[in-house]
Amino acid sequence: MNPNRKIINTAGTVIISSASAVGGKEYEGPLGACFDFHDPDDRFGQKTFEKSESEMQRLALASAMGKCSLTPSDIGALFAGDLLNQCVSSAYGLLEYDIPYFGLYGACSTAAEGIILASVFVSNKLADYAAAVTSSHNAAAERQYRNPLEYGGQRTPTAQWTVTGAGAFVLAHNENVTPDRVFAAVEDVFPGIVVEKGVTDAANMGAAMAPAACDTLLSFFEASGTSPEDYDMVLSGDLGSEGQIILGELLAASGVSASEKLYDCGMMIYDAESQDVHAGGSGCGCSAVVLASHILPKLKKGELSNILFYGTGAMMSPSSLKQGQAIPAVAHLLHLRSPKAGVK
Amino acid sequence: MNPNRKIINTAGTVIISSASAVGGKEYEGPLGACFDFHDPDDRFGQKTFEKSESEMQRLALASAMGKCSLTPSDIGALFAGDLLNQCVSSAYGLLEYDIPYFGLYGACSTAAEGIILASVFVSNKLADYAAAVTSSHNAAAERQYRNPLEYGGQRTPTAQWTVTGAGAFVLAHNENVTPDRVFAAVEDVFPGIVVEKGVTDAANMGAAMAPAACDTLLSFFEASGTSPEDYDMVLSGDLGSEGQIILGELLAASGVSASEKLYDCGMMIYDAESQDVHAGGSGCGCSAVVLASHILPKLKKGELSNILFYGTGAMMSPSSLKQGQAIPAVAHLLHLRSPKAGVK
Repeated sequence: MNPNRKIINTAGTVIISSASAVGGKEYEGPLGACFDFHDPDDRFGQKTFEKSESEMQRLALASAMGKCSLTPSDIGALFAGDLLNQCVSSAYGLLEYDIPYFGLYGACSTAAEGIILASVFVSNKLADYAAAVTSSHNAAAERQYRNPLEYGGQRTPTAQWTVTGAGAFVLAHNENVTPDRVFAAVEDVFPGIVVEKGVTDAANMGAAMAPAACDTLLSFFEASGTSPEDYDMVLSGDLGSEGQIILGELLAASGVSASEKLYDCGMMIYDAESQDVHAGGSGCGCSAVVLASHILPKLKKGELSNILFYGTGAMMSPSSLKQGQAIPAVAHLLHLRSPKAGVK
Repeated sequence: MNPNRKIINTAGTVIISSASAVGGKEYEGPLGACFDFHDPDDRFGQKTFEKSESEMQRLALASAMGKCSLTPSDIGALFAGDLLNQCVSSAYGLLEYDIPYFGLYGACSTAAEGIILASVFVSNKLADYAAAVTSSHNAAAERQYRNPLEYGGQRTPTAQWTVTGAGAFVLAHNENVTPDRVFAAVEDVFPGIVVEKGVTDAANMGAAMAPAACDTLLSFFEASGTSPEDYDMVLSGDLGSEGQIILGELLAASGVSASEKLYDCGMMIYDAESQDVHAGGSGCGCSAVVLASHILPKLKKGELSNILFYGTGAMMSPSSLKQGQAIPAVAHLLHLRSPKAGVK
C-alpha cells in the first residue's frame, strides 16, 4: 500500500443531528417513513427541478440544525456539494445560512467527503460545530447527464435511478455535547484515491465505481488491521446491485470475503421488485438520506454497533465521455460507532 | 460579525513548492517569464481543450513535487478543482497520482480553498505533505459558460478573460523542512461565506464577487484587529479592474481605506493596454499561476513580507442564470508571511 494512505483519527468527533428531504418515489420506498420531509411531486414549491434540489438542501440543513437546537451562527464550517454543474444546488440552497462555506465536488461520494472534512475540523477544534450537506434530484440529473425525462429514453439493466433527496449532518466535539445527543462517533476517516479501470458505459456506474471501492476497502483493512468480520455492516453509498457484485468479486480475488457484510444504500432505498429502478438508487442524495435517516438512528439506538460507511463517486462529465475518456471514480470511507458501546 | 467567523490558525504550515503551466497569451503577458511551462497554442499536445487543461494540472503538480524532491507517495492529501462541469480537469489530470483526493468546487476561489484545506491538514499533522492544484482554460471555459470561440461573440467592457493556466502548491509542516526550502508561511486562513447581492450579469463577475470580497476582508480585519496598513499587499485572485473599484468603494463605505493596498492577480497577468482583456484575467488558473510563480518567489526573497491573498469565486451556472437567479460568490483568504521575517 502506498505510504500516503493513512487512516485519519478523528477522535472526539460525534454526529449529533441529521435530516433528510426526499421526493415521492423515495417516500414510497421501503424507507419512506424514515425521512423528515417529502414532496410527492418532487417540486418542494419550486418552479424548476434545480431550484427544488436547492430547496431540499435548505430544508435538510434547517431541520438538522433545529433538531439539535443550533443556529447557523453556531456552525463554524459547512461542507457542501452536489451533482449539478457548478454545484449550484448547494450554492443557492445554502445561501441564506451565513456559515463559512467549503464547496466540494465528489460526485456521489460527497456525503462521505463532507463528513470527513467536517470531522477533521471538529476533531482538531477548528470549529465547535460543523455541517455537511448534499443532494441530488432525479429530473435535474437526468436532463443534465442524459436526456430530459420527457424524452422517455429506455434504461439498461445496469442503470441506476438518481435519488431525489438531500441529507444534512451536524457534527460536534464530544466535549461540547452530552452523550444522549450523540447518534454516532466518527472514529476514523479514510479518504480515497481516484481510480479508473477503463469503464466507459455511463449507464453502468456500478462497474466504474467498484474498483475505487475495492481499493479504499482493501487499503483500509490493511492499514487498520481489520477485516469485514469486525464490522456489522460495510455500507456503500450507491454501488447498486451491479457494482456490489463486482466489488464482491474484486475483494474475493484479493482474498477478502466480505459478501455477507456488504450493504448498499442504493439497494435499500427502493423496492427492487416494484419500483423499477434496475440496479438501484444513486446520486449524492442516495447515501446522504439513507445515512441521515435510516442508519444513524440505528447507531443511536444500538441496533448497529460498528460500521464502515463509504461513498463512491463517478467523476466523469457528459463532455469527457464524448471525448472518449473512461470514468474515474473515488471512494471515501468513514468508520462509525454507536454511542451505546458494546451493545449490538 | 457572526460568531462563527473565526480565524483558523495554521501555525507551522509552510508552502515549500509551487509550479505553473500557462497558455500563449499568458506567456506573452508581463509575468510570462515567471511561469514554468507554456504552450503557445494552448494545447499541450492534447486534442481537446478540456484534455489540455487536465494536462496542465498534471504538469503543474509534477513540477511542484519535483522542485521539492517529493513523489506522490509522500503527499498525504490532494485538494483540487476547476471550472469545468464535474471538475473533470482535476479528476483526469491528477488521475496518475495515487494521492488521497478531495475534489473541490469553489469556482475561481479554488486555489485559496485548496490551500486552506491543505494547511488545515498539515498544521494538524494529518499529512506530512499536502498539495493543492487548480486550473482553467480559456477555450474550454468559453464554450462551456458562454459560446465557443469560433462564434466570435463580442465582449462587454466589464468582461474578463479566462486564464489558460494551472497552478500547484505543495505544503509541509515546518518541522519537516529546513528554513531555506520555505517560500511562505501560511499564518492564518479565513474561509468565506456565500454572498449574493443581486448581480445577474455573467459578463460582470467583478461586480458579483466584490461584495463577497468585502465581507471576507471586513470580517478578517475585525477578527484579527488589523487593517490594510498592516500588510504589504491585499491581493485578490480575479476581481478585475471593475471588481476592484467596487470593492474599494464598498470598503470605503465601511470606513476602511484600502485602495493603495489592493492588488489583483487578474490585473497583473495581462497587459491592459496591449492584450485586449477588458477588465482583466479570471478563472481558477489566474490566481493559482500568479501566486505560484510571481508572488511566492517574492515572499521567499523577502521582496514581500506580509500579505493577504484571497480568492473570489462566482458560483453560478449557465442554467441558474437562465432560470433567473443572481450570482452567488464566496471569498476565501490566506495570510501569508515571508520566511525572511522582518525583511521587507
